[in-house]
Parts: sequence; C-alpha cells; structure tokens
Amino acid sequence: MPYLLNAWYVAALSSEVTTQAPFARTLLDQPVVLYRDASGEAVALDDRCPHRFAPLSRGQVVDGALACPYHGLRFGSDGHCMFNPHGDGRVPAHARTRCYPTRERYGAVWFWPGDPERAQTAPLPAFDFLDPLHNFTSENYLPTRANYQLSADNLLDLSHFQYLHAGTLGSDEMARSTVRAAVDGDTVSVHREATGEHLQPMLMRAFNLAHGTRADRQLDVRWMPPGLLSIAVAVCESGVPELTRVSLSAHWLTPESVASTHYFFAFGLPRDMGEQGAELVRQAARNLIAPFRDEDLPMLEAQQRTIGERDFWSLRPAMLPIDAGAVHARRIMQRLIAEEQRQAEEERGSPQRKAAHAACE
Amino acid sequence: MPYLLNAWYVAALSSEVTTQAPFARTLLDQPVVLYRDASGEAVALDDRCPHRFAPLSRGQVVDGALACPYHGLRFGSDGHCMFNPHGDGRVPAHARTRCYPTRERYGAVWFWPGDPERAQTAPLPAFDFLDPLHNFTSENYLPTRANYQLSADNLLDLSHFQYLHAGTLGSDEMARSTVRAAVDGDTVSVHREATGEHLQPMLMRAFNLAHGTRADRQLDVRWMPPGLLSIAVAVCESGVPELTRVSLSAHWLTPESVASTHYFFAFGLPRDMGEQGAELVRQAARNLIAPFRDEDLPMLEAQQRTIGERDFWSLRPAMLPIDAGAVHARRIMQRLIAEEQRQAEEERGSPQRKAAHAACE
Amino acid sequence: MPYLLNAWYVAALSSEVTTQAPFARTLLDQPVVLYRDASGEAVALDDRCPHRFAPLSRGQVVDGALACPYHGLRFGSDGHCMFNPHGDGRVPAHARTRCYPTRERYGAVWFWPGDPERAQTAPLPAFDFLDPLHNFTSENYLPTRANYQLSADNLLDLSHFQYLHAGTLGSDEMARSTVRAAVDGDTVSVHREATGEHLQPMLMRAFNLAHGTRADRQLDVRWMPPGLLSIAVAVCESGVPELTRVSLSAHWLTPESVASTHYFFAFGLPRDMGEQGAELVRQAARNLIAPFRDEDLPMLEAQQRTIGERDFWSLRPAMLPIDAGAVHARRIMQRLIAEEQRQAEEERGSPQRKAAHAACE
Repeated sequence: MPYLLNAWYVAALSSEVTTQAPFARTLLDQPVVLYRDASGEAVALDDRCPHRFAPLSRGQVVDGALACPYHGLRFGSDGHCMFNPHGDGRVPAHARTRCYPTRERYGAVWFWPGDPERAQTAPLPAFDFLDPLHNFTSENYLPTRANYQLSADNLLDLSHFQYLHAGTLGSDEMARSTVRAAVDGDTVSVHREATGEHLQPMLMRAFNLAHGTRADRQLDVRWMPPGLLSIAVAVCESGVPELTRVSLSAHWLTPESVASTHYFFAFGLPRDMGEQGAELVRQAARNLIAPFRDEDLPMLEAQQRTIGERDFWSLRPAMLPIDAGAVHARRIMQRLIAEEQRQAEEERGSPQRKAAHAACE
Repeated sequence: MPYLLNAWYVAALSSEVTTQAPFARTLLDQPVVLYRDASGEAVALDDRCPHRFAPLSRGQVVDGALACPYHGLRFGSDGHCMFNPHGDGRVPAHARTRCYPTRERYGAVWFWPGDPERAQTAPLPAFDFLDPLHNFTSENYLPTRANYQLSADNLLDLSHFQYLHAGTLGSDEMARSTVRAAVDGDTVSVHREATGEHLQPMLMRAFNLAHGTRADRQLDVRWMPPGLLSIAVAVCESGVPELTRVSLSAHWLTPESVASTHYFFAFGLPRDMGEQGAELVRQAARNLIAPFRDEDLPMLEAQQRTIGERDFWSLRPAMLPIDAGAVHARRIMQRLIAEEQRQAEEERGSPQRKAAHAACE
Repeated sequence: MPYLLNAWYVAALSSEVTTQAPFARTLLDQPVVLYRDASGEAVALDDRCPHRFAPLSRGQVVDGALACPYHGLRFGSDGHCMFNPHGDGRVPAHARTRCYPTRERYGAVWFWPGDPERAQTAPLPAFDFLDPLHNFTSENYLPTRANYQLSADNLLDLSHFQYLHAGTLGSDEMARSTVRAAVDGDTVSVHREATGEHLQPMLMRAFNLAHGTRADRQLDVRWMPPGLLSIAVAVCESGVPELTRVSLSAHWLTPESVASTHYFFAFGLPRDMGEQGAELVRQAARNLIAPFRDEDLPMLEAQQRTIGERDFWSLRPAMLPIDAGAVHARRIMQRLIAEEQRQAEEERGSPQRKAAHAACE
C-alpha cells in the first residue's frame, strides 16, 4: 500500500536537528537530510546532490547553506543551488534538490511529503499537553523494524498489557476490562477501564499509590492519520475518583519504509504541577523505554517478519472485539490513501495539472 | 521446483521438542512451532497466531495448550483457538492455525506437510536399527545452507571420500573402487566396495583394526523420497570376511528453504553388542560431526552459491558413472513432485475437491 | 546496462596469481578462478566444475592442472577436463569449464571476457611507464562497492580534490583552476592547471618543494574503454617550469558487479632516476592509499547507495562544465556497448554464426 503523502509526519525530535551537522534520515522510503539554516529554522531536503548524487548529509552547513561534500556546491533552504565554486561559478537552472515543507512544534520537526501548496493550509494536529510554554515535556525515539500500522494496532489495543507487559503495565483486571471504540471523522478513540486493579510496583510508584492499594484505571487512546496517537491514563485509589492522577503521552509513527518505523514518543504535564510534574514526566520517559523497547518492539518486529511483504488483510486475521479501534484506523488510512491516489490520477489527467513537488514555499 | 508435500519429513530430533518451551523451525519455507501437549505428544502448528500473526513459538505452553505471547489466545494441539481471555471470551470460528500431522519414532519427530488425510495411511519409512528398544542410538543435527538434493547427491556418491575426506574417511583404494547403482520402486541403492584399503587412523580405531592392517570395505547407501537415507558400512581385515564389523547410520534431509536444509543424522547398533556397541555409537556421532561440518558442509554451501537460484539441470552438469545413484534419486523426486502437482490441479478442478489442509485429524 | 565484453580488463595484480593456490575473483558478475600453469602462465577459468559445480578455486594445482576439490577431476589451462580418477577414467566430451584469454603485462594479469578470437588481435592498451624493464613500479588494489563508471567519473573530474581531499591533494587554487576536456577516437583526456598553489604538506614532500613555496600544478587524465586511466601530475615551483617533477599513475577499473568494482592502481618512474625514483614510487603507493580508501571510496559507495539500481541518466544529473570528460567517457561506453549488442544480435541471426565462447585458443 502506498503512503499517505498529504499529511504531517514527525521527521525528527527537535533536539536531533542542529545548525552544526546535517542529519540523515529515511522518511517514507526517501533519504532526507535535516539541518537548521542561519535563522535556526529546520530544513528538510532530499539527501541527494542533483549533480552527482552525493548524500548532502555528509556535507557541512556553511553560512546557513548546505555544502555538498563531493564538489562543494551549496544549497539554500529552498533546495536551490546557490553557489558553484568551479569555473565561472554559473549555477545550472535545474540544480536543485527537493525541499519539503517543515514545521516545528511539540518538541518535534514535522515534514510534509506531499503537495507543498496543501501544506500551507493544513494545520498541525494538536498535542497541547506538549506545548513547552505550559508543560514539562520529555521525548524519546525508538527505531522499529515493523510497519507503522502494526505499531498503531499495538497502541490502539492495550489489551496486550497483561501479556506483553505483565511485569510492568499489566494486571489481571485489565485483561477483563471493558473496551469501547468510537470514530469521529478521521479520529478513532478507544476507552478502556479496569476497576480494583492490583497494579505492578512501577505503576504504584508512578501514581503514588500506597502498597497494597487497589486502583481504578482508565485508558483513553486517540488516533489520527497518518499515525499520530495520544494516550491518557487516569488512575485513582479504587473508588476514590477525586484523587485521580493523569499521565499524558503522544506516540508519533513515521514510516521509514514499508517494514520499518520511526517511533517518537513524548510525555507532558502542566508546569503548574511544579517539581512533582517535572519529575513525573522524567520518570515516565525513563520507565517506559524498557517495556517499549524490550517487549513491544520484539513483538512488532516478529509480526513483521511473519507477515513479510504480504498485505495484512490478505492473511485474513481472526477478529476480536478488542480490535475494533485498530480496524477503524486501518480502514480510515485505506480510504484516505485511495482518495489521494484517485485525486493524483485525476490531476495527472487534467490540463490544469499542478506542478506538485516542483515548488517549495 | 516445488516441494513434495505428501511425505513424511523429520521436523526435529525428539530431544529438541519439550513440554516446557515451544520451539520454532522453518520447514519447507513454512515457519512451524513444535511443542508437546499435556500427554507428551509432539505437536506441529504454523508458527503464526491467526489473530495478529505473532509467532506462537514466543509464547508458553499452558496446561498443554499453546498461549500466544501477544494477547494470550490459547491453541489446542489441533490448531483451534480454545481460549480467549478478553471480553466475553467468545472464540471466533476461524481462529485457528494450521496443524500438521506428526509421528514420533527413531528419536525424531516427523511431520507431514501435505494432505492430512493421506498421512493417516502413509507408513513412516523403516529405520529399524534406530529403534531404541533394541538398539543403542545417537543423533545429531547440522543446519546446511544448501538445497537438500545437493546433500542427497553427496551421500549417494561417496566417491568424494578420497577428495573431501582424505584425512578421515578416504583412501586411494576407495577412489578406484567399483560402484553399482540400482532402483527398486522409489528406492535407490548404491553399492561400493574397496579391497586392500589403507584406512585412516580414525577408521582403524573405529573398526578395531591393528596398525598396518589392510581392510576390505563395503558401503551400501539407500535413498528413499523425499530425502531419507541410510548408509551401512561393513569393514573387515582384508580377506577375513568372517570378522566383518558394521556401522549403520541414517541421514534425513528436510528442506528449510530451497537453499537450506535441516540435516539430521543418527547411528544405531544392537543392544546385544553390550557396552562396546554403546561406545561405538557414541564414537560415531562424535567422530563424524567434524568431517560432515568442516568438509561436506562448506562444499555443499559453495555448490549452492555457485548454482544460486538456477535449476540444477539447466546448468547441464557433465555426468560420470559415479553419479548414477544421485541421478536416479533426482529423477524420482522430479516424477513424484510432477505427479503431486498434476493431482493437486485435478482436485482443484473437480467438484468433489477435498478441503485439504483444512482439517487435522 | 550490460558490460562491454570484447575488451581487456585487469583480472588481478600479477602478484595475486600463483602456481601454488588457485585464486577466486568475480569479474563482470562471473566467478573466475586464476592460477598459473606448469609454465608459469596465468590461467583464467570459470570457477565452476562442470560436473557438480564445485568452485575450482577451492581445489589444488596438481602438475600444472587444476584439481576439483570435490571429486578430483582435473582441468587443463584450456578448461578441458584431462583426468577423471574414477572407474575407467573416461572423460565425458563436454566436461570442460570456460577458459578466458589472458595476457600478463604492467604488473597485472589481463583477461578478455568476450569472443576469444577477437582477443588474439586486440592489443593491450599501453602503459609504458609501468614496463618494469625500464621503470620502478608499485601497485595496489582497493575493492569498491560502487559501479565502475562512478569511479571513472571520480578520476576524470579532479575538481573534487579541494572538497574530498582538502587535507592531502586539494588547494584553494585547484578549485579555481582551468579545465579542458578533449576526445580523440575512444580516448578522453582532461587537462587541468592551477598556478601559485599552496600545496598540502604531503604533496610538498612528495615533489620536494621547500616549505612556503608556491607551486604550479598540471594534471593530465587519460581515459580509455572500458575503464583504463592514467594520470600524469606535473609540479614545479611556481614560475620555474624547468624544474618540473612528474608523477605517473595508472587506474584500472574492472566491474565485479554492476554495483562493485575492482580498483587497481599503479605508479611508475624511470629506472634512470635511480634510488630517488624507486623511493618516490614506493611513497606514492604508500601515501595515496589513505585518501583513496578513506575519502574517495566512502563517497563512491554513498553515491552507489543513493543511485541504487537506477540508471544514472534517468536521475537527470545537473551538469557542470567540470563534468565534460566524465560525460564523454560515459557516452563512449554507451556507444561501444550498444554496437557490441547489435553485432551480437546480428551474429545470432546469421548462418555463419560463430561459436563464440566455445573455443579457447
């Protein structure tokens, strides 16, 4: 299945993109180079010099321009060659590399692989709890050798907690919890609640529950195309909802290839929680890397190996009620991609065909 | 060339399959999970949960059932899901993974990748010298990065002894020995005898010959489809046949893929030989692993690399009289596979088409 | 693009080919075995026994013949089986492996992958400065994971000196130097000169220039099909041409595969220069391996990864004046290969079709 192109994807954490050294990352099968120009703006270009196809990510940022490591051509943040050090220094008209629209927000650099014009009016999805003005935040990154939709399935159906994460996130009560999936436009939400849970020590500490206390837990997962999720966890001492504590996290899935995914995740809590909030956010990032990396990733990668290059649906998966949210999300992606493909075909056939990808604002 | 499906293949040594931990092995390109159920019976299932395609081999055996590591569905030894821990616990009708008929005998677990109904009446091939009731036995296993028919060629033409195994199994006299190949139904046999041999020290010790003694040696190789061989070696002091000593071995070749093979081999000698027999069998397994692993395997793997994905016959091999047995075996396989393919096509076309693979006894 | 077959390629440095041990190298996608026969002549055969496809390079040279490691068949330097140790010893008529015409000169073994008859009248290209009778010479070899034409591009356009080799071969003045490309028949030459250069210490020492001296440098690159280059570098104290010192090198590019190249290079200086010449030649080989291996190779390999299996021209490279030589060379190869393909097709259609490849002189 092709990718959805007219959409915002996370290309990198903000901390990964610097003014000093360009940074290479393959996004939707495309080698991309990321750096910051003289004004500190994040730039995303095809990582390929148009002259001899050297990777620009091996070059240097010189005066805010990206210099090719092979023959020293320099490119501006619009992808156009702006300096040729050889001979009379003339720059051939088509010496440019593709430039992708970017935005920077929520601690991440976002990029738009589709038609640049549409990017101008397309808003970034909202992750307000990650706005650093009002929140403590903490981010992390895990490359995953699995299709991004397998990662979304995993996050949309947390019934695996008790099996994959029995020692950290799971509980017997969670396995029997009630689940409700809903669709609103292109957004999928899954609500799950478990009562009277015996939480694992890691969670008891995180939510500041006394040893032996039973807990009530609510999990709210929200998914938006192309693979942007947030998870809200609300925990209280069983039957004492007035003392509910909340954890908020974002999970951003960007395809590297059809069989590998850049998995970015971030936690945020309001600054008015003071030092306790800052500590909880640090703790979350520190504590959750282990189950994500050591329990989820190996499973996702094993699924990917089993599925191989086959279409997921062609394998005729057995469906359970717990899959409702994940299935909604897959169907929405299928529809959006089909619409985009159809539209692209119509544009190719039309006389007013737009030169998409040719211009970069 | 496709595989022969309606045949017994060795899936694993009995010692590899346990009640505690499921065991993954790719057989004829198919990932298979092997374990023992509550009664100790060996079970072979497709290593793929029908729900989300997690490998069941990463799960656990719980009360004799195989539990998926991702969401905890449990499967019985017939491959049907028998327990769903989520929600109302209902099990979708088609939640099952393919189950393969198995047998256990001769220290090995055998499986049948074809039509389960035919397995019921198909006898296992006989390797009586490996019946542990009456024999001391010893088994071993070598994964080989070469097509299983290259391994069969190797075992059916022992004229390579003097070249690949000059320091262990070969002799100058063996190179000049007489060879006779015969076909009986689908069984190929190759008889070879050498007289007045100077055996290498390893064999002198194994057959208890005094230093300097010359030996007469007879080698009898028997091949049966799909790649089940036995080799009988009879050695005596030259001209003293009444003191002949015999070594018996089985060689079972199971394709992992078209370019790799599970090579199982086993030795057996009658229990009425007493401790001497037990010691000879242990010695054989210990001594022969080195030439098999260090001399045969690198050659088979080099042949495989040279041949690549091309058909063996398309390379028009130069034929020598020593190849007669191996050529018979290849032709029998070709005929059996062609017959099976034709039959499968007829069944696909027929109204009484059987739902092969759908049911497991 | 297919390879040019009717051409001399370097198969190995002379020192790599011995009478003792056969030597395996893949040339133009073909596994080839190289050894010396009883008379010391270099022999190049397909590295594949025609019997069971064992690699002959794992065998031994016995009495000047190449013995297969699997069953002991022996092959003469014409590729014909000349000894079968089994049974009655008869040799099947078509038991032969392909033999390639070879020549030995300039410290290298050359081979001809095309029609053997044409090899007989095709002269080796001249690299007189490598004739060991009159020159000190020094050779080296670097396997490169990039297409051979990317290597040729690199050698034909030395404007990369200032970017890839800023610390060794480059200078600011070189970046601004004048360049002139010319074509004479199938030979391309590129002349480049820079004046008043501040050379890097390595070159100052090599050309024996006093610290602080400015230099004038002329670079003359000559390219011949299929990828045979020489580079002459002439350096003098700026404005003092009577004291010009010269470095001569050969660069031979042989495709291993479409994406990898055997890169052989050699230096030569006249024996009448005495010990100084010998020392300069040794120094050149010693000093240049580092920039070639650590600066050029990673760039070529990065280009190859970026280009992948796509045709170079299909990526529509932006052209600069500095590319003129490289573009000429690519066009000549394109024309020669197209001519050869057309001719081969005509011959296949003609009744007097020659049995090319079937005979070896």
